Amino acid sequence: MEFLTATTSHAALGIIASFPLGERQTSYVPLEEARGRILASDIIALEAIPPFNRSLVDGYAVKAKDTYGARESTPALLIARGEIRAGEFTQQSVGDGEAIYVATGAMLPEATDGVVMQEHVRRSDADLEVTRSLRRGENICFAGEDVHEGQIVLEGGRELTPFDIGVLAALGITRVPVYGRPKIGLISSGDEVVPVCEAPSPGKIRDINTHTVSNVLAAKGCEVILAGIARDALKEIEEKLLMVRESDMILLSGGSSKGQMDLVTTAIEGLGGTLLFHGLNIKPGKPTIFASLWGRPVFGLPGHPVSCAMVALRFVLPMVQRLRGQTPGSGEWTIRGKLVTNVPSSYGIEEYVRATIEREEGSTKVRPIFAKSSVISTLSKADGYFVVPEGKEGLEAGVEVEVFPLA
Amino acid sequence: MEFLTATTSHAALGIIASFPLGERQTSYVPLEEARGRILASDIIALEAIPPFNRSLVDGYAVKAKDTYGARESTPALLIARGEIRAGEFTQQSVGDGEAIYVATGAMLPEATDGVVMQEHVRRSDADLEVTRSLRRGENICFAGEDVHEGQIVLEGGRELTPFDIGVLAALGITRVPVYGRPKIGLISSGDEVVPVCEAPSPGKIRDINTHTVSNVLAAKGCEVILAGIARDALKEIEEKLLMVRESDMILLSGGSSKGQMDLVTTAIEGLGGTLLFHGLNIKPGKPTIFASLWGRPVFGLPGHPVSCAMVALRFVLPMVQRLRGQTPGSGEWTIRGKLVTNVPSSYGIEEYVRATIEREEGSTKVRPIFAKSSVISTLSKADGYFVVPEGKEGLEAGVEVEVFPLA
Repeated sequence: MEFLTATTSHAALGIIASFPLGERQTSYVPLEEARGRILASDIIALEAIPPFNRSLVDGYAVKAKDTYGARESTPALLIARGEIRAGEFTQQSVGDGEAIYVATGAMLPEATDGVVMQEHVRRSDADLEVTRSLRRGENICFAGEDVHEGQIVLEGGRELTPFDIGVLAALGITRVPVYGRPKIGLISSGDEVVPVCEAPSPGKIRDINTHTVSNVLAAKGCEVILAGIARDALKEIEEKLLMVRESDMILLSGGSSKGQMDLVTTAIEGLGGTLLFHGLNIKPGKPTIFASLWGRPVFGLPGHPVSCAMVALRFVLPMVQRLRGQTPGSGEWTIRGKLVTNVPSSYGIEEYVRATIEREEGSTKVRPIFAKSSVISTLSKADGYFVVPEGKEGLEAGVEVEVFPLA
Repeated sequence: MEFLTATTSHAALGIIASFPLGERQTSYVPLEEARGRILASDIIALEAIPPFNRSLVDGYAVKAKDTYGARESTPALLIARGEIRAGEFTQQSVGDGEAIYVATGAMLPEATDGVVMQEHVRRSDADLEVTRSLRRGENICFAGEDVHEGQIVLEGGRELTPFDIGVLAALGITRVPVYGRPKIGLISSGDEVVPVCEAPSPGKIRDINTHTVSNVLAAKGCEVILAGIARDALKEIEEKLLMVRESDMILLSGGSSKGQMDLVTTAIEGLGGTLLFHGLNIKPGKPTIFASLWGRPVFGLPGHPVSCAMVALRFVLPMVQRLRGQTPGSGEWTIRGKLVTNVPSSYGIEEYVRATIEREEGSTKVRPIFAKSSVISTLSKADGYFVVPEGKEGLEAGVEVEVFPLA
């Protein structure tokens, strides 16, 4: 039975990583819409940040050397001349033994290389006593200290954070080159599945997978095209596949029974597609299909909601990352902690175990949630999941595991 | 000088946590738009999930007791009668010594309490040999095993994840009670600041804070109302405050110099507001103001981009959480790791240090980024920040710190 020759998780991820994809579409979006998008090219600074030497405090711009050795009891004596406000352009220069009052953010006069904070001076008319020795550069941001001209400030393939947007703003970049959002066609299937808006008659259940998967994808910046629910009939599955043939990837959930899997594989092959793997040595999630159809990646996901969600997180998201143009592995956080109980598992199968995390002083505890793969409510309760490798027969209490956050 | 009587971080968070807020607005949104919203009330299941005993596999529904003791060499002998497909309503019942073929997801006939997988039977016509003993409940999800009627499945105050949406879908909840998105008025100020679309003349810089802060807020589900840039003039600051008086909270960035802070406090008090704190014992972020104006919280944020961002993350977001109706502290992840270098800090000041995280086998390393508070590019490079408590003069290499992720 073909289904029993399951592909390993490792091999499956390799097949997904090497699936040939076309060129990503790129476009420019306004800075206001760039958060969460994937930067399509390196951003090179065409100017320096800051563009001039700036004061970081309210105080007196001086030549630092004029303050060397100054103390409360033996202050340095300077002459205060004028003031520079924030935003003001100045061509003033400062001679030896002179100082100019500058506000926070103000441009510094030429030849000054430090700012004495107001707390460290005594002033009487133009006479200024500096009661503290200043280091060169103290309380100053030099021109180009943040970003110098020609510097690569952000690398292509990054998901743009609020702080990246700040860097782009600083450089005056109001149109940002980003990759297009992947369009993902999503099909649910199964005679037992009804849309959420319908009351299921006895024997039927509501369509959960469309909702979890579409939201997982939307959270990762995808556009989801919902094709609805296909009955367990070859013609319906083919019709739904054709409906979303223009998408960048197609996901079909619900082929968990032998009969359903056969329909899905027959439909894919009938439309000219090629199966790349068919059955994984993972739990939950064994009845997973991956294929190439019309040059596009197609996943057949298990019908059980937890299995479907786990395969989406573990196998579909790496492909989403590729379709987005995102640098692999970037922006992923895991939490390390110690198992509070033994976790049994089957040798030869990679298991995904939902868990909650408990933070204590000096240690992080991971508590497995043992539940069947049909129990969707555990995904709500779990903080994340950890992996029991296929080469292990379970993990012992106290072992450190790496938890992948769910949300 | 009033500014020097800085409020502690702890006291400031207490003031923010106890600021009196009005009732949150609630509304119903379609399930398709509910991700990331805050659930406004507990969700109680009005039905069981699953609504009937379901098979988790393809196989034969049996009475488990009929298989007790079965082995490869001494199989249990049963009579196979008919088949139930997924989605089919059945009123069949199974007698002692009988079995019915069921597909994955199918409703189980009454009186059956286990499903033998196909791999563990031998069949010839109606004669079925079961080669393995079954536990009661094996390969079944019993009615209500996921969610039972009357159970609180999701608690109000949660930020809805894709998996919560799945639970709501399972229950047929297509309209979801959520709190309204907070409306945040955002003002930038300073004579030195120009909008991003303008080329700054010498002495001026582009407005960064509007972009970082608005994106931090948008990422947390806020609606941001941009009031633009106020010059350093009382009248302009008052006008901008009045422009956004209908928002749930007002943020004004840019009051880092003594002169600018005075203008901001004068404007707030002139419009009838009350200062609640004015200067924090933190670094970066000391020149932070918090006030009540028109019954709404108002923050005066520092002008330096990093200071502004840190105060937004550390002090504004807890207020955002309250305005959203979110359960405090929920959905926050931190990463624990060991410092790779000593970190100096000033006694009596709580310091926030940006850092990168390096994962190694068995350990997590935290590498501080030392940079001035004007250097926005470090926020792009940092994975997060950690806190040096005010009671410490620095932290030593090897100490474990808790890193708050930035993005």
